[in-house]
Amino acid sequence: MHLRGRLWIEAPEGTFLGLGRVRLLQNIQQLGSISAAAKSMKMSYRQAWGLVKAMNEHSPSPLVERSTGGKGGGGATLTPTGVAAIELYETALQNFDHYLQTQSETLSLETDS
Amino acid sequence: MHLRGRLWIEAPEGTFLGLGRVRLLQNIQQLGSISAAAKSMKMSYRQAWGLVKAMNEHSPSPLVERSTGGKGGGGATLTPTGVAAIELYETALQNFDHYLQTQSETLSLETDS
Repeated sequence: MHLRGRLWIEAPEGTFLGLGRVRLLQNIQQLGSISAAAKSMKMSYRQAWGLVKAMNEHSPSPLVERSTGGKGGGGATLTPTGVAAIELYETALQNFDHYLQTQSETLSLETDS
Repeated sequence: MHLRGRLWIEAPEGTFLGLGRVRLLQNIQQLGSISAAAKSMKMSYRQAWGLVKAMNEHSPSPLVERSTGGKGGGGATLTPTGVAAIELYETALQNFDHYLQTQSETLSLETDS
């Protein structure tokens, strides 16, 4: 038997960062736009933008910056805070995986004591 | 910001124990029947019985025992393994709460390094 879990970071107003949001940030970083990131995750632009907006508002400073202008509309990039947010969550997740593994070793349903 | 999470125990075949299943076990222990426990959780008897069946089958020995006969049909009681399963999960959860609290203290999105 193994211990499994999910992990997310909450701001006072609700979820700030979870697995889905971090994947979205990573895809924005890689693809340079919110709409391309949304598309790659089979998410609507509206939903992706809602998540970005929530993250930006619940953070001390924005995680994603939209650049307007240029042909084909503007793109989006991560700010240093956005990059730090990905790292923060990934580190917490690695830590958590290690915790789950260690704790799993202590799991036993033996009742013959 | 705070780290939050969910925790469950998996058997090779899938989820073995999670928060909902443990609440169900606790209610069976308290109310003495699967149908009363299901009702108290606004769960159908069919769903509750499915969960009990899955837990019984994925455990080295059953967690819940049904007693048949008597007026109004049979009740259900927890076996020692059932009681141990609740304790196992509750202990894991307490441990996890402590972990989340400790880890939350290290969370920071400061990027001025």
